[in-house]
Amino acid sequence: MNQAPISLHRRHVLAGTASALAAVGLASWSNRATAETKPLPAYASWKDPSRVIVHSGNTIETRRSAFGTGVVTPVDQLYVRNNLPPPDASILDDRDAWQISIEGVKNPRTLTLAELKGMGLETVAMVLQCSGNGRGFFPSKPSGTQWTVGAAGCVVWSGVPVRTVIEALGGMTDGMPFMTGTGGEKLPEGVDPSSVVERSVPVKAAEEALLAWELNGEPIPLAHGGPLRLIVPGYQGVNNVKYVKRLAFTAAESSARIMKTSYRMAPLGGKADPSQPSVWEMPVKSWVNSPSGEAGSAKAGRVQIHGVAFGGMHAVKRVEVSVDGGKTWREARFVGPDLGKYAWRHFVLSAELPAGEYTITSRATDTAGNVQPEHREENLRGYNNNSWADHAVRVVVA
Amino acid sequence: MNQAPISLHRRHVLAGTASALAAVGLASWSNRATAETKPLPAYASWKDPSRVIVHSGNTIETRRSAFGTGVVTPVDQLYVRNNLPPPDASILDDRDAWQISIEGVKNPRTLTLAELKGMGLETVAMVLQCSGNGRGFFPSKPSGTQWTVGAAGCVVWSGVPVRTVIEALGGMTDGMPFMTGTGGEKLPEGVDPSSVVERSVPVKAAEEALLAWELNGEPIPLAHGGPLRLIVPGYQGVNNVKYVKRLAFTAAESSARIMKTSYRMAPLGGKADPSQPSVWEMPVKSWVNSPSGEAGSAKAGRVQIHGVAFGGMHAVKRVEVSVDGGKTWREARFVGPDLGKYAWRHFVLSAELPAGEYTITSRATDTAGNVQPEHREENLRGYNNNSWADHAVRVVVA
Repeated sequence: MNQAPISLHRRHVLAGTASALAAVGLASWSNRATAETKPLPAYASWKDPSRVIVHSGNTIETRRSAFGTGVVTPVDQLYVRNNLPPPDASILDDRDAWQISIEGVKNPRTLTLAELKGMGLETVAMVLQCSGNGRGFFPSKPSGTQWTVGAAGCVVWSGVPVRTVIEALGGMTDGMPFMTGTGGEKLPEGVDPSSVVERSVPVKAAEEALLAWELNGEPIPLAHGGPLRLIVPGYQGVNNVKYVKRLAFTAAESSARIMKTSYRMAPLGGKADPSQPSVWEMPVKSWVNSPSGEAGSAKAGRVQIHGVAFGGMHAVKRVEVSVDGGKTWREARFVGPDLGKYAWRHFVLSAELPAGEYTITSRATDTAGNVQPEHREENLRGYNNNSWADHAVRVVVA
Repeated sequence: MNQAPISLHRRHVLAGTASALAAVGLASWSNRATAETKPLPAYASWKDPSRVIVHSGNTIETRRSAFGTGVVTPVDQLYVRNNLPPPDASILDDRDAWQISIEGVKNPRTLTLAELKGMGLETVAMVLQCSGNGRGFFPSKPSGTQWTVGAAGCVVWSGVPVRTVIEALGGMTDGMPFMTGTGGEKLPEGVDPSSVVERSVPVKAAEEALLAWELNGEPIPLAHGGPLRLIVPGYQGVNNVKYVKRLAFTAAESSARIMKTSYRMAPLGGKADPSQPSVWEMPVKSWVNSPSGEAGSAKAGRVQIHGVAFGGMHAVKRVEVSVDGGKTWREARFVGPDLGKYAWRHFVLSAELPAGEYTITSRATDTAGNVQPEHREENLRGYNNNSWADHAVRVVVA
């Protein structure tokens, strides 16, 4: 959606934020809120520039202040993270002709998207999140995009269940502990073949996985992996392989670099290796979106503090909110429809906030009893940050 | 969302449809599927032209083939029906300054949108549908836009519950049977003041009504009633007053023409008058979106027939699908998340369709036991069409 008058207005408001925050001594926060944004790349030129921060041609983040309370994140503000430049847009010219090779089943074969569409239909709402979301809060300054909260969204995918495809091809080959998806990006010339986008996940994830052709009810745009994307609900974004051209049930994890050493929970100061945990299941997490911390985001009086919470593999059960940096907590209320255990829920706490400075944060608990921790798990590359302290916003109420 | 390459491609496909259908003797259906579309008006220029039919500057319809299975209808393809030209876009320059006068309460007063935002927050998913949706199927050819299925969508609204506002202003004045909303459109000069957009609904509707500022998680665009819209879940679209500037609990229905004589269930050949039922609660309804009836929308073999179903005031409980024009029926399966009783649900029936011609339709039943009827209720202006026979698609499977 492109609405010139609104966008111009928003840009104006944001331009005013940095100086206003500097005036109250929160310049470092203002840098985060209004991080320098680059022009949108051509393949994502239809995104709303007033709602995103363009870190690079392959990394686009939703602004914290742009998250509304509609549960489903509109595609025009959904984050983008590509590990390689996307394929040429011509792959969307005939979506139904897209081919995927299914391996590690009794009757392996190549299927077209048209054939997949005939096989079955399921729809799932889920949080899509880059495992590096929140990296910008690590004091260790890990290399990589300095995402804060906006490398995430709650979106709706439609496609055929992977289990339906397996069944149609005679069932899985016995003894395959992994499901491996391979992306259809073209490797730039001279690039090491191990740079391919290929990820393996535990085979149990196949139970709920989809081969999806729709995102939020429309054919998946190129920027988000169309014509066909592997969807693994509850797993960090990188496992949801875009332009998926091969789905295999395998004896071993992929030897692609993105699997072998990237996206590993390596120790600070150490080196990544395949023995370390990969970023698979998402941990329980929440954050406040409003007040956003931008200048003027809250006025003295009654304020509806709201944000999002999700449990990764489990539904979120409870959210507490603190306005004093975690000293005291109050139970928030969920608002809006419940889209299932993989979706996020919006929470709201109605609070009376006299003029002053506040550190507002939230803490989620999932149905398995996992509680969002105060502190991040330190790691070399800044993955899986779900620290409630890191995600706090400092708000000046005037 | 604007994706030039995709849109161009789609337009190309649609351009080919009319001649293809004419070749198999279904030219009149092709006219419906590819109704002549006008340029998008400026205030809705951000809609996706490949997904809508622009009937006029105030009436824009979603194409049947554009409905996906993502439950929530993206705003870039959501229908538009304005009873008057929208106000100037400058009313969005400072959304929080928008004012609404609340009357018929103990302490009547004018509130700004900023004040409403502090009072409470609720989110509801619901079907928004023009009461004239399906008018194009009336053989009596009632005057008005010849909508088929696309003057409807399932969307998510966020705002403050009307009951919270009533409570904050001391409660409702006793004995007011109606809730009346007044739109902020500027009447063109010389136009009869009774042309104002003002609608009354039974006061019980206040229980679930919202004063909403967000649509699908973003500030409401001008085309859809931003900055503030009255939302009455379960009620036909016209009751959801855009640019709402006055909300009153009243002893009588509004005397605006849009209430008095328009939107009445007047008899065929008769005259509309205030004694006839107004278009308030939506009746149970469903229709098939895919195959859409456009050429090539189904190929011989296994086909996933899918569409949408909703119950108006009650959740939808059951949908049956027929591929032989209603002679035989099979139970469809719901897919995707359930967004609550006012939302629609997607249904799917997996069917083996050999080459041939089919008349595919669906029949919904709600939790109160209401069954979608075979025949429309005839009326002068073509409102409330929920006939399953009318909504059938003729599909040529090759």
